[in-house]
Amino acid sequence: MISKAGRFLLSGSGWPYLLVPFIPLAVVLEFVVHAEATLIFGAAAAGVVPTAALMGRATEELAHRSGPGIGGLLNVTFGNAPELIIAFFALNEGLQEVVKASLIGSILGNILLVMGAAMLAGGLRFERQTFNPTAVSAQSSMLLLAAVALVMPTIYQLVAGGGLPGVGEERVDFGSELEQMSLIVAVILLASYAGGLLFSLRSHRALFNPSHDAEGPLEDEPWTVRKAAVTLAVAGLAVGLMSEILVGSISEASQAIGLSEFFVGLIIVAIVGNAAEHWVAIYFAAKNKMDLAVNISVGSSAQIALFVAPVLVLTSFVLGPHPMPLVFNGFEIGAVLLAAIIANQVTQEGESTWFEGLQLLSLYIVFGLAFYFA
Amino acid sequence: MISKAGRFLLSGSGWPYLLVPFIPLAVVLEFVVHAEATLIFGAAAAGVVPTAALMGRATEELAHRSGPGIGGLLNVTFGNAPELIIAFFALNEGLQEVVKASLIGSILGNILLVMGAAMLAGGLRFERQTFNPTAVSAQSSMLLLAAVALVMPTIYQLVAGGGLPGVGEERVDFGSELEQMSLIVAVILLASYAGGLLFSLRSHRALFNPSHDAEGPLEDEPWTVRKAAVTLAVAGLAVGLMSEILVGSISEASQAIGLSEFFVGLIIVAIVGNAAEHWVAIYFAAKNKMDLAVNISVGSSAQIALFVAPVLVLTSFVLGPHPMPLVFNGFEIGAVLLAAIIANQVTQEGESTWFEGLQLLSLYIVFGLAFYFA
Amino acid sequence: MISKAGRFLLSGSGWPYLLVPFIPLAVVLEFVVHAEATLIFGAAAAGVVPTAALMGRATEELAHRSGPGIGGLLNVTFGNAPELIIAFFALNEGLQEVVKASLIGSILGNILLVMGAAMLAGGLRFERQTFNPTAVSAQSSMLLLAAVALVMPTIYQLVAGGGLPGVGEERVDFGSELEQMSLIVAVILLASYAGGLLFSLRSHRALFNPSHDAEGPLEDEPWTVRKAAVTLAVAGLAVGLMSEILVGSISEASQAIGLSEFFVGLIIVAIVGNAAEHWVAIYFAAKNKMDLAVNISVGSSAQIALFVAPVLVLTSFVLGPHPMPLVFNGFEIGAVLLAAIIANQVTQEGESTWFEGLQLLSLYIVFGLAFYFA
Repeated sequence: MISKAGRFLLSGSGWPYLLVPFIPLAVVLEFVVHAEATLIFGAAAAGVVPTAALMGRATEELAHRSGPGIGGLLNVTFGNAPELIIAFFALNEGLQEVVKASLIGSILGNILLVMGAAMLAGGLRFERQTFNPTAVSAQSSMLLLAAVALVMPTIYQLVAGGGLPGVGEERVDFGSELEQMSLIVAVILLASYAGGLLFSLRSHRALFNPSHDAEGPLEDEPWTVRKAAVTLAVAGLAVGLMSEILVGSISEASQAIGLSEFFVGLIIVAIVGNAAEHWVAIYFAAKNKMDLAVNISVGSSAQIALFVAPVLVLTSFVLGPHPMPLVFNGFEIGAVLLAAIIANQVTQEGESTWFEGLQLLSLYIVFGLAFYFA
Repeated sequence: MISKAGRFLLSGSGWPYLLVPFIPLAVVLEFVVHAEATLIFGAAAAGVVPTAALMGRATEELAHRSGPGIGGLLNVTFGNAPELIIAFFALNEGLQEVVKASLIGSILGNILLVMGAAMLAGGLRFERQTFNPTAVSAQSSMLLLAAVALVMPTIYQLVAGGGLPGVGEERVDFGSELEQMSLIVAVILLASYAGGLLFSLRSHRALFNPSHDAEGPLEDEPWTVRKAAVTLAVAGLAVGLMSEILVGSISEASQAIGLSEFFVGLIIVAIVGNAAEHWVAIYFAAKNKMDLAVNISVGSSAQIALFVAPVLVLTSFVLGPHPMPLVFNGFEIGAVLLAAIIANQVTQEGESTWFEGLQLLSLYIVFGLAFYFA
Repeated sequence: MISKAGRFLLSGSGWPYLLVPFIPLAVVLEFVVHAEATLIFGAAAAGVVPTAALMGRATEELAHRSGPGIGGLLNVTFGNAPELIIAFFALNEGLQEVVKASLIGSILGNILLVMGAAMLAGGLRFERQTFNPTAVSAQSSMLLLAAVALVMPTIYQLVAGGGLPGVGEERVDFGSELEQMSLIVAVILLASYAGGLLFSLRSHRALFNPSHDAEGPLEDEPWTVRKAAVTLAVAGLAVGLMSEILVGSISEASQAIGLSEFFVGLIIVAIVGNAAEHWVAIYFAAKNKMDLAVNISVGSSAQIALFVAPVLVLTSFVLGPHPMPLVFNGFEIGAVLLAAIIANQVTQEGESTWFEGLQLLSLYIVFGLAFYFA
């Protein structure tokens, strides 16, 4: 007979905590043993997952206690915190191209990897799964519009005859015009995100918080506000610690494995930062709650473009060390525009099958292949 | 108590006539005072709006009297007359890049600015507005197909290794091959437009004349044919006069304000030329007639690509002074293709909210920003 | 009174056999008279049509006899045999750019020419035709995802700063990295095609075999297995013979007519290789079976991208004479991505009219024009 804790660890929301041992392991490898960068990187990557999951859980509990208004705000603000924290540390290390790669990688991963895995997992159990195309359509329109705004400075740079950043670079100086333009685009995106929050909190709650309306994977008694707040703080610190270790070892580790920093940012960092949410989407798909699965995958992508990316641009301008203009390389703008178009197309008929999931996953592998060769 | 004329001036279709004083002002500034180009440009831009509105009104009255067949034809032919007249004068001045920029700007403005403002205005009053996606889908397919045809000579030029026109240029000579190709593309587009007219006039009237089927903003007793014809002629002359003044001051005025001719063509001329129709779309949205609002915005865009652009190409070949091949700059082809894809996506679910409108407007500002920096 | 054979020849599936005389003619012109290449090319092109049609018929009869499982497999395997055979001969002659052009041309032709002609033919008889958008949507998603995977090595080459193949070239050496990448992409596409087969044969039969579920154009008594197998073998040999003659005369004939090999591959070879299926789609549209017509057109495109193209890449690596990496020229990647987006858009509302067909055909002509000038 499995204990309650055991059941939780094997449940949809419990599995990340199986990775808890990697947290002390990463600390020991980094600060005590001074192990090889590859080992440190691996341990820290695994260690991020449970801390991010705990942060998500604490946020939800806190939001639950705070009533719909402030709760929704909390959910949205802290929902993307792990990605933001990792990116802050990377920015601080001057790894701008890694940060931008991980942003694009998150969008691409949410559309192809997460939605693909969810459709495959769900489709293997249910012949044909349906979801409400109208709700998803609002999300995927949001993604498309934000993605187009996001790539506009890059298009400007391209048309003006300036080169795009190479795949192997860490940071490129694009001149003050592009920096100014990126800043304004970031402000416009955030303003429109604020509009979306207002919209969502007032009358259309489902837009940003699809999972909030539904039962979580495992229903327990709710936490107290105190417990939730303390857990959130502790989890945040733990994410920060893991992120610092992770980011500090990226350059050396990627060299040792023979992968480009670009690939590491686009595939590995992006997967690690979103792992907890990813699993939830697959979990819901397997329970035939396809609406939630598709909403999480498309909605998370939209939030990256509309909130996480502009916040990072503003941070880089305000806190430094260097401003990060929104200039992506050729792979990245291709990937984000195609991902937005694919998200719109694949969700448009409100039906999914395992074959559609398989195709999305295949395409993710093909993208990964191109990034690997780059 | 407001008089009947006052009520009309403050109504949905009456407001353009508030700008009537700018007509004599522009004439005086240009021919009597010889004022600064910036002042002349501003007065002429404001003066175009009421003349274009009057032309639209007279066309509708004449169409109303002529029965469905010829009436539809009249509506379509003279519906785009103001844009055509402005462009004719600009072509005559050799301002080809301004003309092409204003074509793309009209398409982009109809999709992002007009539809965005309509969805925002409507959404602030009504929580969720619906429209028939099937009807709009025919229009947005038409826009996509025409946009792809329109950019084909540019793609040819790009692939053939020739450079695209720079943003700062007024007229570029692309060689006879591209001119020949542009001519044939224009003829094909017009032929398919003629097919569309036949289609529309025979069995599917709503395709080109959505507003014709509905009541206008203010219902009066119908005009006589004589009154309508005379008004149409007078308004046409007035549009021509304002256009000549407007176009004559573009180069100097844009230099004085510190804007590129490209920006002036793409944003200002495009807005001025379509102002009257724009307002009608927003007016309908506020009345919860979202079908009409969306049809006007997508349908006008499609007509620019399918009718106005090819007519201007043909004119430039026949009347000169120089042939205008369909070669757009990088911003322009990016903008028109993305606008067509966005139009398809945003209208596909048949629902709109104020947040969707806000996002479209935000994206228009981002595009405007890129054009401003260009 | 027309005989039974006469009725058959004038029916939807019978007309290709009117071209049977071109088979001996091509043989005589090639081997006996040693005529001009243009004449040989024309005769062989016409001669391919009936042999391909016969192959299709024999496959269907064999499939009919074999039960759903193996029958479906047969249908899919031999359904694309004529295109494959022509391409094998062209590969063997080193005409790689012709092969790639004919692949893209088949996708483009199926979407614009076949669907356009079908919608036009059907729309002239029926005011508005409807089809199930959900079924088509699965096909067009499949096309979009496969098309994106297909162009990924080209995007890699573009971003890496390498040039794309010029339009006038026959074979370009892109280095081993791109060849390796193309090989893996081909394997992934085929694996996902195999998944699709499994999917289709098990639970969702309609995905790859839309026409199989419906009555053929003319219902006869079924063939014996022996008759079907022998016919298939004979027809296959005849296709091979015609293909060899056709391919052997391409270079000389295209020079003589003054067309590029690129244009010949993209337009003429693509039409010839798919002629029999094309006709069936138009035939069904005229009978108001729009579901079948649209399925054939979108489904055939998807199969080219997902099956025919990767098989040819693998063949070129295994059988030689040179590996053919998946690097397309600028026209080709533009055409295939736009075709996939258009297919998604045009079929999304589940309605078609003759004007939509006219527009698709117009766009095909515009594409053809660009290829002609290239």
